[in-house]
Amino acid sequence: MDDLRAQVDRRLREFVERQLHTPGGAEFEPLRTAAADLLSGGKRLRPAFCYWGWRAAGGTDEPGVFTAAASLELLQASALVHDDVMDKSDLRRGMPAAHRRFETLHGKSGWQGSAEQFGEGAAILLGNLLLIWSGEMWRTSGLPPESLAAAQPVHDHMRTELMCGQYLDLLEQAAGENTVESALRVALYKSGKYSVEHPLRLGLVLAAGKLEPWMDELCTAYGTRVGIAFQQRDDILGVFGDPARTGKPAGDDLREGKRTMLVARTLAAASAHQASTVRGLLGDRHLDERGVATLREIIEGTGALRECEDLIGDYLTEALAALEQAPITPEARAALADLAVAATSRRT
Amino acid sequence: MDDLRAQVDRRLREFVERQLHTPGGAEFEPLRTAAADLLSGGKRLRPAFCYWGWRAAGGTDEPGVFTAAASLELLQASALVHDDVMDKSDLRRGMPAAHRRFETLHGKSGWQGSAEQFGEGAAILLGNLLLIWSGEMWRTSGLPPESLAAAQPVHDHMRTELMCGQYLDLLEQAAGENTVESALRVALYKSGKYSVEHPLRLGLVLAAGKLEPWMDELCTAYGTRVGIAFQQRDDILGVFGDPARTGKPAGDDLREGKRTMLVARTLAAASAHQASTVRGLLGDRHLDERGVATLREIIEGTGALRECEDLIGDYLTEALAALEQAPITPEARAALADLAVAATSRRT
Repeated sequence: MDDLRAQVDRRLREFVERQLHTPGGAEFEPLRTAAADLLSGGKRLRPAFCYWGWRAAGGTDEPGVFTAAASLELLQASALVHDDVMDKSDLRRGMPAAHRRFETLHGKSGWQGSAEQFGEGAAILLGNLLLIWSGEMWRTSGLPPESLAAAQPVHDHMRTELMCGQYLDLLEQAAGENTVESALRVALYKSGKYSVEHPLRLGLVLAAGKLEPWMDELCTAYGTRVGIAFQQRDDILGVFGDPARTGKPAGDDLREGKRTMLVARTLAAASAHQASTVRGLLGDRHLDERGVATLREIIEGTGALRECEDLIGDYLTEALAALEQAPITPEARAALADLAVAATSRRT
Repeated sequence: MDDLRAQVDRRLREFVERQLHTPGGAEFEPLRTAAADLLSGGKRLRPAFCYWGWRAAGGTDEPGVFTAAASLELLQASALVHDDVMDKSDLRRGMPAAHRRFETLHGKSGWQGSAEQFGEGAAILLGNLLLIWSGEMWRTSGLPPESLAAAQPVHDHMRTELMCGQYLDLLEQAAGENTVESALRVALYKSGKYSVEHPLRLGLVLAAGKLEPWMDELCTAYGTRVGIAFQQRDDILGVFGDPARTGKPAGDDLREGKRTMLVARTLAAASAHQASTVRGLLGDRHLDERGVATLREIIEGTGALRECEDLIGDYLTEALAALEQAPITPEARAALADLAVAATSRRT
């Protein structure tokens, strides 16, 4: 796995380094640096699911698969940059969010006009570049054209679905019922499918040239479950995570008012008084440590935290059982099992 | 040309109609409707340059080329949606800009949270969908894989360059020297190349499978010149255009403080007093009819308007001369000549 990470890291560095070298293009340096800095972090989970899907379907190590897998990090980076603009977040991976970075560039340079508007505009464009590059890196990975052609519908579907998931998330914050069911749907579309299921499916189809029934079964029984558990872990980290590890302020999701599965479970189990407290504090931009502590107590006290942890455990168990049934090599089985554990028990 | 437009219109309608039909996906209807409404307008210039590039290089009429050409409208629509978010514009093609549309949806629905933030978020996602779909429609056009493979580097380059051009535009507003030269560079990257030169080049390469020297010559001698003249016309319409035709309020570019070639020429030719008036009024969000009239008088009085009109005329003449030299069929020559005139003398 360390080797996979190194392969992915190197390819991302080299790809971004090649971009934006036009004559007199020194002014694009801040875009390239912002992309490179953002891409230097990250858990590389999506490339790993893609790579091990490829190996699970009989693919052997070759340069192209590392490049194709690495391209998924560009898509993720694009989503993060735009997400931070939409949420008006300040931090990402322990560094200023891209729009804040460009806002600071504007301020430091003493430029005219609104620094905030410049920052948001530049971040929207950076996210677009990352989105465009993810497709370009995928297609120019060096894998055979027929493999890429077979996987292209999955690739297109994944990207459209990601945007739809993000839109569902906006709707859920604005108008959602905040039921466990609706929060689960958002989690599945916004994150679960594109973090685990689709990268895995891409790897499988790239290697096999088509989706065999057992692959589809694996993507659902293992991929969907790991994806949902992954997002539940994300929900928990957004409330209880250690800022030194997550790179986000403590309780940031509470301050942003995210309507997660954890919150939905809390509201479902809360007394009238507790529910009213949660509704009053959630989304308060100026929520202090005490407010965070109050919400954490309710989330623990209602049993919602325990429920989420149990669900993660159950999903992981079921996913690993499904993995046992799949006709894949012992090596791929072991790696996908490790990945499932890593994705759902992570602390960053 | 009417037939080409009908072909492009139909394909865009059909493509967008096929999107976002997931189970229980009624909530995506506003995204699809916003895309369809936006795409119902537009001059279809980019598809026309692409189509006639194809014909100029010997391509014959076939369904795939209409689809590939039409996909360029999705890229343009994506840029417009994001541009309006970045500029905080209210109107586009005579209708509310996408972010205002979603803001209204939020308000009308009585949803919670900031309607403005919801509108911007949804518009960023809509722009992303249009960007993703433009690539998907291009690749699934039905043209032979080898033609698409030959044109792909041009396609990738065009999209990255468009984002860079938009970034240059942000920089020019914030920190530019506002010289004629710097304004010309922005116009070339932001609009000229991707409106004329690249669509033309795409059509040529799609048909020929490679870029012959005469094609590159045509893209520069004809394409670049028509592209710059096209953008100069845009600058003039942004100040002197008829709102009923442009779908934008009168003098909107002045209110937004756009640092166009027209403005750069005005400042270069202005007296100290005139320059100070221009700098004082340009970018005033509340600029009234009288302010617009004052700026128009200065732009005309300094001779800047005349200069821009002359430049458009010169570029058009040179482009048409270059077209005469190209080894293409009389039919393609005539159509590209008509297109050059249409692109540079348009009133919308």
